[in-house]
Amino acid sequence: MDNFTFYSPTYFVFGRGEENHTGKYVKRFGGSKVLIHYGGGSVVRSGLLDRVKASLEQENISYVELGGVRPNPRSGLVYQGIELCRKENVDFILAVGGGSTIDSSKAIAAGTVYDGDFWDFYQGKPVETALPVGTVLTIAAAGSEGSPDSVITLEDGMLKRGATGEGLRPRFSILNPELTQTLPPFQTAAGITDIMAHLFERYFTNTQEVETTDRVIEGLLMAMIHEGPRVIADPDNYEARANIMWAGMIAHNNCCGVGREQDWASHGIEHELSALYDCAHGAGLAVVFPAWMTYTMPHNVMRFAQVASRVWGCQMDFACPERTAREGIEAFKKFLKGIGMPGNFKELGAREEDIPAMAHSVCYGNGGNGTVGGFVKLKEEDVAAIYRLML
Amino acid sequence: MDNFTFYSPTYFVFGRGEENHTGKYVKRFGGSKVLIHYGGGSVVRSGLLDRVKASLEQENISYVELGGVRPNPRSGLVYQGIELCRKENVDFILAVGGGSTIDSSKAIAAGTVYDGDFWDFYQGKPVETALPVGTVLTIAAAGSEGSPDSVITLEDGMLKRGATGEGLRPRFSILNPELTQTLPPFQTAAGITDIMAHLFERYFTNTQEVETTDRVIEGLLMAMIHEGPRVIADPDNYEARANIMWAGMIAHNNCCGVGREQDWASHGIEHELSALYDCAHGAGLAVVFPAWMTYTMPHNVMRFAQVASRVWGCQMDFACPERTAREGIEAFKKFLKGIGMPGNFKELGAREEDIPAMAHSVCYGNGGNGTVGGFVKLKEEDVAAIYRLML
Repeated sequence: MDNFTFYSPTYFVFGRGEENHTGKYVKRFGGSKVLIHYGGGSVVRSGLLDRVKASLEQENISYVELGGVRPNPRSGLVYQGIELCRKENVDFILAVGGGSTIDSSKAIAAGTVYDGDFWDFYQGKPVETALPVGTVLTIAAAGSEGSPDSVITLEDGMLKRGATGEGLRPRFSILNPELTQTLPPFQTAAGITDIMAHLFERYFTNTQEVETTDRVIEGLLMAMIHEGPRVIADPDNYEARANIMWAGMIAHNNCCGVGREQDWASHGIEHELSALYDCAHGAGLAVVFPAWMTYTMPHNVMRFAQVASRVWGCQMDFACPERTAREGIEAFKKFLKGIGMPGNFKELGAREEDIPAMAHSVCYGNGGNGTVGGFVKLKEEDVAAIYRLML
Repeated sequence: MDNFTFYSPTYFVFGRGEENHTGKYVKRFGGSKVLIHYGGGSVVRSGLLDRVKASLEQENISYVELGGVRPNPRSGLVYQGIELCRKENVDFILAVGGGSTIDSSKAIAAGTVYDGDFWDFYQGKPVETALPVGTVLTIAAAGSEGSPDSVITLEDGMLKRGATGEGLRPRFSILNPELTQTLPPFQTAAGITDIMAHLFERYFTNTQEVETTDRVIEGLLMAMIHEGPRVIADPDNYEARANIMWAGMIAHNNCCGVGREQDWASHGIEHELSALYDCAHGAGLAVVFPAWMTYTMPHNVMRFAQVASRVWGCQMDFACPERTAREGIEAFKKFLKGIGMPGNFKELGAREEDIPAMAHSVCYGNGGNGTVGGFVKLKEEDVAAIYRLML
């Protein structure tokens, strides 16, 4: 196990009706003039935005609003938000929505108190200070409610890049599983896929002897395998949604990722897809991850056999562990198909002719040095080969 | 799943040599005049105390010292510490040791800034404010390095009681597995038992549909079953110690216990034993927990069968789940014996004639209302019956 630090100071408030206490938490964490940041019509139509506003008013907290965040959130709205926050002397950003809204809020929070261009943070500058951010989460997926990360797409060139830094951890996050019940099944499934991807990115490592975090990751994957199909079959199942929502946070606040090298190639490979074709991040991951697994499996057959056996319940073939390893990947594919996720380029709306440019961008974009990934260091031709496995 | 809040703002620093940066973290979390609190000779003999002092001196942080914490820490030293902190205007408590030292430090931290008797907090008053506490952990066991809890024994009457409150969460905790390598095997094993007990106290619940936390708990238990015997056989195994140390924190910062009723009867039943016979808390739990399981198993046979099957690898007997449930309890007993833990009253040095008084104290001590436990509400006669199973 490698040395590490772990710090997850977000205050989590979980359960039915908790969004009605938003104002109390904004006050507790020092907000007096709030930007409420959100996406499209669903938080308006559902009445959620009104409930949040009422709870701010109850605490005599004033606010301004900025809606319009879209999936794969864009830089344009971030610049708009920064301008608004400066003009209105906003001292707290409240994200009401999913990962995209939270990531956009984090970008505004960092940019408002920074003299330069906020995009600097998405080119590698760590975020040390930012306005405090609170969240009311409506999608279990990105884990952004407990993470120090944010991903934004720069409109000029459609570059999708990430920023990180302790300044980006939300001060509080309100997680009410009921708020996810109105999601279309496709989005619910994409969220489940994203959660599993966050676990797999940490699971596939060259660091030896990380049994404790291995076992926790395996446990969370099994919980997703149990709850995923239940919630797709029965969207109103509060308990399944609650288990998924809490797992989504744990999967990405890094308590499963400490002390080990992580991979993250699949996220890089996916970001090109969602930047170019604007597909849902989780749907992109459903296509990318099994292809990445198929390509990298020979690097450590026993690790793939382990997850096949412990998580997917495959019988271990002691004479041919590779067979078990392959069976595990097939089980994952079958699971993804079962919850309604796409399985190839065509279903995603992606084009074969874009592969060379995407592979190049994965390895050389964002100041890349020509390889991507920690478990296997993939070169441009490896990434292209992985894309071709998705055809 | 029940509604809950979760807040674990401790900054964890994990790995080899990290105690040499103690001063940096004390400074970061606002300490300028420190009380170094510790136990007996081992932190002195090993040179740990000198390394910690050197790192404080490097940051120009002044300090006073108070040693002498003993297992099952006593109120007398807490009163002494409070007096010292007030006299010396201490603004930060640094615990260098295991759970006892940390718990004693927390009590001093709460008592120093409180006008009344610190024991009020151990009679149910929540701790809201306290001096900041940092820890350099030397035993993986109690989880006090990441918890809002403290347990102290009042010398007048030998009452062992707990306090809790967000004010008691350490600001930072330094976890270097190397520091646990000099522990006698018995203490290492007692620590492992304590960690498993913290998991079981949360696992046995009447709350339905807590799959995510169930799976995480099961994963952590499996990690302990894997690493426990390894470290007993090979005390210098850094990797096994590292996995146990991180599990010890996760097991008790309550990320596994959220949204569910918990039990904690076994801890109450054990506290009487260690208060009266001054046995190691983990050793007491090794005797108590299997007896508690045997007694309460009929309350929910399938839950016991689940842990037997998923964690201990017992074949599920679908015709007679109770047989599987019993097999799981036997596997736990065998595991405990294998790592050198006691199995009955005699090995613990406990006496049958004390049972009635202990059973009464468990149910009526500390303002008790006559029952103990969440999974099964045990009355005095139930507790006495459980004690008798340990004879």
